[in-house]
Amino acid sequence: MQFGHFDDEAREYVIETPHTPYPWINYLGAQEFFGLVSHTGGGYCFYRDAKMRRLTRYRYNNTPVDDGGRFFSINDGGDVWSPSYRPYKTELDFFETRHGMGYTRITGERGGLRASVLLFVPVDVNAEIHQVTVTNTSDAAKSFSMFSFVEFCLWNAEDDQTNYQRNLSIGEVEVEDGAIYHKTEYRERRNHYAVYGVNAPIAGFDTDRDTYLGYGNGFHEAAVPHAGKSENSVASGWYPCASHQLEIELAPGESKTYTFVLGYLENAEDDKWESLGVINKTGAKALLARFATNESTDAEFAKLKAYWDQLLGSYTVESGDDKLNRMVNIWNQYQCMVTYNMSRSASYFETGMGRGMGFRDSSQDLLGFVHLVPERARERIIDIASTQFEDGSAYHQYQPLTKRGNHALGSGFNDDPLWLIAGVGAYVKETGDFGILDEMVPFDNDESKAQSLMEHLKRSFNHPLEKAGPHGLPLIGRADWNDCLNLNCFSSTPGESFQTTENQAGGVAESVFIAGMFAAIGPDYAVLARRRGDDAEADRAESAVADMKQAVVDHGWDGEWFLRAYDFYGNKVGTNDTDEGKIWIEPQGYCIMGGIGIDDGKAIKALDSCRERLNTPHGMVLQNPAYTTYKIELGEVSTYPPGYKENGGIFCHNNPWVIIAETIVGRAEYAWEYYKQIAPAYREEISEVHRLEPYAYAQMIAGKDASRHGEAKNSWLTGTASWNFVTVSQYLLGVRADYDGLVVDPCIGEEVGEYTVRRQIRGATYVINVKSTGAKGARLTVDGVPIEGNTVPYAVAGSIVQVTATL
Amino acid sequence: MQFGHFDDEAREYVIETPHTPYPWINYLGAQEFFGLVSHTGGGYCFYRDAKMRRLTRYRYNNTPVDDGGRFFSINDGGDVWSPSYRPYKTELDFFETRHGMGYTRITGERGGLRASVLLFVPVDVNAEIHQVTVTNTSDAAKSFSMFSFVEFCLWNAEDDQTNYQRNLSIGEVEVEDGAIYHKTEYRERRNHYAVYGVNAPIAGFDTDRDTYLGYGNGFHEAAVPHAGKSENSVASGWYPCASHQLEIELAPGESKTYTFVLGYLENAEDDKWESLGVINKTGAKALLARFATNESTDAEFAKLKAYWDQLLGSYTVESGDDKLNRMVNIWNQYQCMVTYNMSRSASYFETGMGRGMGFRDSSQDLLGFVHLVPERARERIIDIASTQFEDGSAYHQYQPLTKRGNHALGSGFNDDPLWLIAGVGAYVKETGDFGILDEMVPFDNDESKAQSLMEHLKRSFNHPLEKAGPHGLPLIGRADWNDCLNLNCFSSTPGESFQTTENQAGGVAESVFIAGMFAAIGPDYAVLARRRGDDAEADRAESAVADMKQAVVDHGWDGEWFLRAYDFYGNKVGTNDTDEGKIWIEPQGYCIMGGIGIDDGKAIKALDSCRERLNTPHGMVLQNPAYTTYKIELGEVSTYPPGYKENGGIFCHNNPWVIIAETIVGRAEYAWEYYKQIAPAYREEISEVHRLEPYAYAQMIAGKDASRHGEAKNSWLTGTASWNFVTVSQYLLGVRADYDGLVVDPCIGEEVGEYTVRRQIRGATYVINVKSTGAKGARLTVDGVPIEGNTVPYAVAGSIVQVTATL
Repeated sequence: MQFGHFDDEAREYVIETPHTPYPWINYLGAQEFFGLVSHTGGGYCFYRDAKMRRLTRYRYNNTPVDDGGRFFSINDGGDVWSPSYRPYKTELDFFETRHGMGYTRITGERGGLRASVLLFVPVDVNAEIHQVTVTNTSDAAKSFSMFSFVEFCLWNAEDDQTNYQRNLSIGEVEVEDGAIYHKTEYRERRNHYAVYGVNAPIAGFDTDRDTYLGYGNGFHEAAVPHAGKSENSVASGWYPCASHQLEIELAPGESKTYTFVLGYLENAEDDKWESLGVINKTGAKALLARFATNESTDAEFAKLKAYWDQLLGSYTVESGDDKLNRMVNIWNQYQCMVTYNMSRSASYFETGMGRGMGFRDSSQDLLGFVHLVPERARERIIDIASTQFEDGSAYHQYQPLTKRGNHALGSGFNDDPLWLIAGVGAYVKETGDFGILDEMVPFDNDESKAQSLMEHLKRSFNHPLEKAGPHGLPLIGRADWNDCLNLNCFSSTPGESFQTTENQAGGVAESVFIAGMFAAIGPDYAVLARRRGDDAEADRAESAVADMKQAVVDHGWDGEWFLRAYDFYGNKVGTNDTDEGKIWIEPQGYCIMGGIGIDDGKAIKALDSCRERLNTPHGMVLQNPAYTTYKIELGEVSTYPPGYKENGGIFCHNNPWVIIAETIVGRAEYAWEYYKQIAPAYREEISEVHRLEPYAYAQMIAGKDASRHGEAKNSWLTGTASWNFVTVSQYLLGVRADYDGLVVDPCIGEEVGEYTVRRQIRGATYVINVKSTGAKGARLTVDGVPIEGNTVPYAVAGSIVQVTATL
Repeated sequence: MQFGHFDDEAREYVIETPHTPYPWINYLGAQEFFGLVSHTGGGYCFYRDAKMRRLTRYRYNNTPVDDGGRFFSINDGGDVWSPSYRPYKTELDFFETRHGMGYTRITGERGGLRASVLLFVPVDVNAEIHQVTVTNTSDAAKSFSMFSFVEFCLWNAEDDQTNYQRNLSIGEVEVEDGAIYHKTEYRERRNHYAVYGVNAPIAGFDTDRDTYLGYGNGFHEAAVPHAGKSENSVASGWYPCASHQLEIELAPGESKTYTFVLGYLENAEDDKWESLGVINKTGAKALLARFATNESTDAEFAKLKAYWDQLLGSYTVESGDDKLNRMVNIWNQYQCMVTYNMSRSASYFETGMGRGMGFRDSSQDLLGFVHLVPERARERIIDIASTQFEDGSAYHQYQPLTKRGNHALGSGFNDDPLWLIAGVGAYVKETGDFGILDEMVPFDNDESKAQSLMEHLKRSFNHPLEKAGPHGLPLIGRADWNDCLNLNCFSSTPGESFQTTENQAGGVAESVFIAGMFAAIGPDYAVLARRRGDDAEADRAESAVADMKQAVVDHGWDGEWFLRAYDFYGNKVGTNDTDEGKIWIEPQGYCIMGGIGIDDGKAIKALDSCRERLNTPHGMVLQNPAYTTYKIELGEVSTYPPGYKENGGIFCHNNPWVIIAETIVGRAEYAWEYYKQIAPAYREEISEVHRLEPYAYAQMIAGKDASRHGEAKNSWLTGTASWNFVTVSQYLLGVRADYDGLVVDPCIGEEVGEYTVRRQIRGATYVINVKSTGAKGARLTVDGVPIEGNTVPYAVAGSIVQVTATL
């Protein structure tokens, strides 16, 4: 069952009904100012940090759900409704929400009046624009009132929802020339404020939520829109909000357009005040002036469109499969941008309060982002590496505002260091910028300890070698990629965090997954060392990788699949010898990505075991059979009810590793089948089961042991989009950057048939026509000339290179 | 304007309309299980700790407000309503909520059907009882459906509202014999669960909130009650809830009663399971069996009534002023019990997540609680003292579950130590239990460092002497009673906590308020030392007190009032020489309580200054003029908009100190006037201005600089009730426990006229008839015999002593 459709031409998903199974959201902004907006207008916005600088209030888990946002209310002769349907739920004659690239357009029509709200954050502007067009679709003249509404958050979103004994006394606003200024705490240590204005005369305003709603009312009962008259309330404490009243007259067929601006402004410390208690509004007035005409707003919107045209031009595919095209060309890349910006910080499942940028998360997010804006990827790499410790380990997370490591969460996740090598490798392959390796980068943000980035990579590389266990496999530490496999934790205290609790010392818990990562990622380090002329180091690295692979072969193989780990006591995890958790997905994917078992049949065996034991029509579960009881020696993974999350749920983040592995062993049909199982566009038709957005990956889909098998949760989360984009673009479609050229090595299902990839990299454009699909091993021609192997050498900037690939 | 009335006979406040200006709440429970319930059924319940063991979910700052709670829905032939009015807001023919002592009864009637819900927590039972009586008030037979509903919180209330990426996957329930069991996380580290059952056959149930409400609906749109049929949903993740359906038939005039039990149960670690994944429900079944008949529920309710009869018997007054009677006999004492139990942890303004028990808070709460249950006061004293450090300082807060000091907030609030002496002094005066001074009590919860409680008091006493500044006044540290006067903080970072931020070293900030406290409380330490035979220590203490009083006279007097402090640089705070914050309330009250300026006219001058500069018809503001800009050298006090909170708001906690001071100087009429300004019963008639409960003190009333002057916030907060009860019972009515006898020293307005206090203490009963009022200095007779002075010696247990007091 569908609730909308893709409009690929416009790069939009069109939601046709307010009654989706969950709020389906979009993101506004790509630089410093961001908004989340649902198809019924819910959500919030913030400047840079979703916790520390939140402009508008949003209540997660509110009832009614998703009732806070930017709402436009129409009172047409006493008939009160909103084009976003919510909060009034007044039935509409027409409803449509179009989520596009960095913008959303919500349109509703009722009783001969159409209202369309375009929401976007302009490029390089710290503001949300709400451009509202009202059209009289009836035969008679119309005279009606329209009310805007946003509710302000008192800046720190966490404090805002906990510290009422203070917060209900501090709200302050100003109203000047029809613009509403939110200045809570500006009197003291803040130098920033918000403004909500409109480019038209207003008939009234409200800034006190209890006045606007009427005390005790829900948004659906809002008093002012129902009365059809603003109260001109000035908030003093309690709940500051901003609402304008516009009185509008429309002849039959006439349209009028209004631009509302919700902006964030800062003043210099010594320039905060116009007079005692009155904000210096110079910045806000300039912002409002910039959007004084609807034409200037249109121009800013056109700039945003152009910005995305440019971004999405680096990698495109034309195939006969619309779903594939839209995932690759639009939505998967779009989500990569979102997760690059948000990491795991802000979605409808992450409140934006608790999480910073992850060392592991952001390194992986880079993999799918590096081709979009390489210069921002470079900056991110330096930020991430700056939080590394001198021993190669790393803060597991860092704060986006300060870029400092998060002490509360600390270190000890032993896969973290290797991800840095993966991110840097991807960046250098994309750009050829080996110079980044010479950048001096601090350890633990201490400039006095700065070393070259290459030295950082060396310590990353050495870390799993230095922290190796009795089988020569890397010790797992607090946890590896699977945050919830906590082999040294032994927690018995309710609610205690498995990720931060004091770990037990003296164990020998090793991770076969990290060993696989080392095998897969280590060679990049060797190459980088060799390119810098350090052959000895390169040789040492290659030798270490070979040793690790042998250790996996010797101690990481269970007979039909790769083991997952050894626990604290040295017992196997992920073995056929146990009743539950026999086989885990992560080592199967990553060991094969590391080239282990390719030649001796282990890889195929492992993948067949995945197919037999992990696969479902909704994707591959993380492990199987799920744990039915809590295993103190395994930690959080066993706390979930079977089929959910790490306990047998389907992770869209690690399914790609198996898909890549299938392409490595050349099983194109399996790889393709697995890709389609989880790719949201292919799940659109079962939206009533999947429930979340059909244009964005979710972290998790409930597994086969769950009563809600197939239901997705945690959409828009870090890492997932990147890995899926890497998988489809580099391994299925088979076009991936390498150090000296573009590898073209397709391995995708036969049903896809002929397709063409356009790839812009290092200034040149490659037009790659893949003639046929269904297997691996295509032979290439470059500008008509056959070549050996599958690497198309990089051409000079500006050139257009024609490539064909034929089985 | 009133929204209800007091029913003093029943000890109830009767709310006559759902449309109060704010949710007016009550507390259930007095031992380990507590509930908060508003007059429209909102609120939640928890076991011992409002953060860590919350049974039901409540959304602070929800819209619509206060929509979560325990709701009973009636579907009477398609007409859906609730006796609590919310969440449906279906108009009722009759509505009444009676908040009583530990119980609330909500009654609604519509269309010839009356439903009355009695909510209470029985004595010594870890459960909320919801006893529902439905009555057919019509002339025809009735057949209708009734639905119960509670939504479960996933135990840790903070995690519950932040960690959705995990929490939405973990919810689990069981349903057995019509009882619904909430067992989220029971599979792992928890050994506790909740049950919601009813003593009648059910026609259906629901445990999945989205099914009960219908996805996306608000509580007012709940699908199941509107459909008139339960779906028998079993929650798997998302939002577990509990709802029963009862099918009820009533003849005209007939009533039926049902008892619902919402209980908390624990199992031993090795006895958790009945079978794989199935809870051992022995405890729950015993609980439900205990309330299987309505008669047994009635008996438990009678026990609760008797419990409160006994508690409130220790101090009663009969006067011609009903408001005075009800404050003293019922509501002020009741609030003392609530704040003793809750400290500042859980109200409709405190979420119950952020705060533990305060060292300062709980010591002051003792002052109004010690006569109610002295043995619990004793336990609390030991708990508090156990968190003290060896140097006399103290953790500012400690956790109720662990009774350990709160490291996050730490120490350095230099008034804290003295409050312990005040609390112990009050306890010993009430009980004569000098033995408590010999109790061995740890420092910093380290048993190996245990010393006698007397030694703790010594270190408390010495602390302000050892931490004294250049004027011989105590250094203020992080802050004194006024948490928001932060003289060493110098914070410029937005949102940074003034209470926990690193303080600047090297300053000389002194507190005249702490000096006043020392003068007022220090003598109790001297007495205790002398009673233990340590005359040298007593002499030393008395001498130190005298020196401190002299230091205040020499350096703490501004000419017309007492200074508030010296700042970091040694500049005066609270002086006529500055434009703002000229005069502060705290030192005026406490210095006079410490006996400073009584003889030389300073006290009268200071109190006249308070009257002139601080007093308003709504109480005395904290300081004046309020600060119009942020003063980095003063801290949080200057962050509030003028008139709110510490920046010129009216604190009901420190107004009593001025009232006591007025009784000390003998100005009965002023004392009485000030008492009435803030006492809630006297503000009942201006409920539309005051807005909060007319039966409970609020922390703060907006001051004269605020646009909402007279509006109260933060009701039910720690300390306030205690100080007001101390003031009215011990100083206005003038009956207070001393070491050797009961002091009878009334000082109350003439309009009160003759009154009688009955006081039970140390096993004897004192019937004190005060013949006339309007001044201080009554002469006493004891059993008809005139005595010298105003101390009635303690009589032997069991005796009844008749006292008269005549001007």
